[in-house]
Amino acid sequence: MAAEIVNPRSDSDNGIESADNATGEPFDPAFALHRGGKMAIQATVPVRDRDDLSLAYTPGVAKVCTAIAEQPELVHDYTWKSQVVAVVTDGTAVLGLGDIGPEASLPVMEGKAILFKQFGGVDAVPIALATTDTDEIVDTIVRLAPSFGGVNLEDISAPRCFDIERKLQERLDIPVFHDDQHGTAVVTLAALRNAAKLTGRGLGELRAVISGAGAAGVAIAKFLLEAGLGDVAVADRKGIVSRDREDLTPVKRELAELTNKAGVSGTLESALAGADVFIGVSGGTVPEAAVASMAPGAFVFAMANPNPEVHPDVAHQYAAVVATGRSDYPNQINNVLAFPGIFAGALQVRASRITEGMKIAAANALADVVGDQLAADYVIPSPFDERVAPAVTAAVAAAARAEGVARR
Amino acid sequence: MAAEIVNPRSDSDNGIESADNATGEPFDPAFALHRGGKMAIQATVPVRDRDDLSLAYTPGVAKVCTAIAEQPELVHDYTWKSQVVAVVTDGTAVLGLGDIGPEASLPVMEGKAILFKQFGGVDAVPIALATTDTDEIVDTIVRLAPSFGGVNLEDISAPRCFDIERKLQERLDIPVFHDDQHGTAVVTLAALRNAAKLTGRGLGELRAVISGAGAAGVAIAKFLLEAGLGDVAVADRKGIVSRDREDLTPVKRELAELTNKAGVSGTLESALAGADVFIGVSGGTVPEAAVASMAPGAFVFAMANPNPEVHPDVAHQYAAVVATGRSDYPNQINNVLAFPGIFAGALQVRASRITEGMKIAAANALADVVGDQLAADYVIPSPFDERVAPAVTAAVAAAARAEGVARR
Repeated sequence: MAAEIVNPRSDSDNGIESADNATGEPFDPAFALHRGGKMAIQATVPVRDRDDLSLAYTPGVAKVCTAIAEQPELVHDYTWKSQVVAVVTDGTAVLGLGDIGPEASLPVMEGKAILFKQFGGVDAVPIALATTDTDEIVDTIVRLAPSFGGVNLEDISAPRCFDIERKLQERLDIPVFHDDQHGTAVVTLAALRNAAKLTGRGLGELRAVISGAGAAGVAIAKFLLEAGLGDVAVADRKGIVSRDREDLTPVKRELAELTNKAGVSGTLESALAGADVFIGVSGGTVPEAAVASMAPGAFVFAMANPNPEVHPDVAHQYAAVVATGRSDYPNQINNVLAFPGIFAGALQVRASRITEGMKIAAANALADVVGDQLAADYVIPSPFDERVAPAVTAAVAAAARAEGVARR
Repeated sequence: MAAEIVNPRSDSDNGIESADNATGEPFDPAFALHRGGKMAIQATVPVRDRDDLSLAYTPGVAKVCTAIAEQPELVHDYTWKSQVVAVVTDGTAVLGLGDIGPEASLPVMEGKAILFKQFGGVDAVPIALATTDTDEIVDTIVRLAPSFGGVNLEDISAPRCFDIERKLQERLDIPVFHDDQHGTAVVTLAALRNAAKLTGRGLGELRAVISGAGAAGVAIAKFLLEAGLGDVAVADRKGIVSRDREDLTPVKRELAELTNKAGVSGTLESALAGADVFIGVSGGTVPEAAVASMAPGAFVFAMANPNPEVHPDVAHQYAAVVATGRSDYPNQINNVLAFPGIFAGALQVRASRITEGMKIAAANALADVVGDQLAADYVIPSPFDERVAPAVTAAVAAAARAEGVARR
C-alpha cells in the first residue's frame, strides 16, 4: 500500500497497441501489462554527486563493512537484508500449469514479489532455479541466505516441497515458509473460525474432509488439527488417506497417522456423508449428491481455480457458508491475505523461524478483521482491506516474541 | 539517472541523530545513511484492485507463463530478466578489507546495485554467497541464472575469480563479467588512450609496468596487450613476473608467456627505468627515484585507494599525465564509468556474452566523451558526466551486434 507505482520503462514502450503490433501476438491485456516485467530496483539513498558516492560507496561504505565484520548482527541494521525475502521456485508446480520450468514460472514469482511489496511493504526478489533436485535446491538456498531476511518457497511440487522446507529450516536461522502450504492453511483456518463463530459451533465439533493431498491439502490438514478441529480426513485421487491403505508415500503415511480419527476409508464422496466441512484444493469435481449428503449447516470451501470443485450456486443449496478461491464470488480464500503480513511481522522482530503459534496468530488476526460484520458471505476480509496486513503483521510479531523466536 | 530517489523507510527512522542515539555508535554519516539499507523493490505495474490483480497475478499471469513455456525466449519480453543483473560475491576480496565474509560485503554489493541503477538504468540484486568453494559458487550461479539477464562478479579473490568467471562463461549464455578485472581494465585503457593522444604517441610505442598481479593487474595486462600496447610487464610482491621465475602460479605463468617481451626481471623499480606507463593496482608504495627513472613524458596511474602508490604531487614532477582512483584528484579511474553502460548495452541487445571487442568499444567510447577538451588533467570523464553511460551503452550494443553475440 505504501509503494508508489511507476513504470520507468514506459518511454521505451508505446503501450498496448504497439507492443501488440511488435510481437504479433493476439491482443491480450495481460501480455501488454507484462511487457518489460512488473518490478524494478529503486535506490533509497541519493547518489547524485561525489559526496553522496563517498558515503553510499567508497570510501564511506568500508566503515560499515568493517562494523558488520566485527558485529555480524549489524547486517540487519545497515543493509536491506531484514527487509528482503527471496521468492524461490523450481517451476515444478506453477498455478494449475504444473511443471513449466523456471523461466516460465518467473511471471508468477514477480507477481508474488510485487504483492509482498504492495500488501506488506516487504521487498522480495524472484529466484527461479535451474534444478529440481532436492539437495541442490537446499544447498543453493543455504548459500544465498546471507543476502536475505527470509525465504518464501513457491510452486515447488510435493512431496519434494516438504523435504526442502524441513531441511532449510534445520540449516537456516531465518524464516523459511512454503506459502502454498502454510499461507493457504492460515487463510483457510481464518475463514473456518469465522464460519464456526457465525453458526455457533466450536472448532472441536467439526469434522472436515479435504480433497487433495498435495502441498496445500497436507498443510491444511495438519494445521486444522493443530488449531483444534474435531477431525480431518484427506482424500487423494485414490480415495481417503487411511491407515489401511498400502499405496501411501511417506508423507501420506504420516498423514494417515495424524488424521481420520473416524477411520473412514473409500471414496471422497462416501467420507462427505455427514461431514461438516469440505475443503477443496484438488481441482476435481464433487458430485452434487455428495454435497447434499453433508451435515446440516455445512461449510463448503471449494478453492480450485478457475473451476471450484463445487460450483458456488450448487453449494449454496446445501451449505451455510460457501467460500472459493475466486475474486468474483464472496469469501475469497486468497493467500495474499496472509503471506505479506506473516513475513512483515517475522522480519520486524527478526524472527529466526515462523512457528505454529505465529501462523495461528496470523489466522486469528485475519479472522478478527471481519469483526461485527460477520455474515455468511463475509467470513474472510477482502484482499484489498487495508486493515489486513497491519493486523497480521502485529499479531505475528507479538507471537514471535511470545514464543521466544524474536531477536529484537 | 532515471531513478527517482525516495526513502520509503524514512518514517521509521528519525534521521542521523536518533539513529546514532539508538545504536550508541560514534557519529558517522555513513552509518546513518546505511540504516535500513540503500535499496528497495518497486512495482512497475498497478496492484490496486481486483482487475489489476487479475492481470498481474492470477488468472491473467497464467497466459504469460504458458506463452513462455512454449517459446522460452519470451521470458526476455515479459519478465524483468533482461533488465536485472545479479551482483555476486563471496566476500573474499572486498575493497581493501580482504576476506570479510558475505554479510559484511553486503553494503558494497548494495552500493554496486544502486550504481547500476543510477548510472545505467539497470536493475541489480546483491547476492553474497555463504561459500568460497569455486565449484559451489559456479553451480550456485548456474542455478540462479534463469532469473537474471547477466552476472556481475564482484570482490572475489584471485586466483579463484579467474576460474569462476571462465567456468560460468562456458556454462551460461548470458553475460558474466568480473568487474574488478574487466571494468578496471576498460577504464584504464580509456585513460591511457587519451593520454597517448594528448602526448602524440601511439599505443604501440608504449611500454607499461603494472604493480599488482591480482584480478585487476592480470586483466589490465591482457587487455592492454589486446588493445595494442607495445609491451607490458607485471610485478607481484616478489618482483617482475618473468619466464625465468619458478614460483609462479598457473595464472602468473600464463601472464609470463603473454607479457614482458623485453624480458626484464627483478624488482618493480628496476623495470620502471625508461618505462612509459606506470599502473598501480597493488596498494604498495613506489619510491620517488623509480618514478624519476621513467621515460620523459611518462603516465603515472596510481590507482590504489585511499593511498595511491605514488602521491600525485610527486608524480606530477616527473610525469606528463597523472591519474588516481581518488575522487579528490583529477583523472579518477573509477569503474562506475564502465560497468553500468557495459551491462546496459549487453542487455539491450540480449548479448550472450561480453566479448573483448565489446570491452574495447566501451573503452573507446569512454575516451571519446572527453573529446576536444582533452588535457593532462582531463584524460577521463567524471563519473557524473551524463554523457558517459549512454555513450558506453550504445558502443557496447553496436559491438555486440558486429561481433554476432547480440540476440536482438
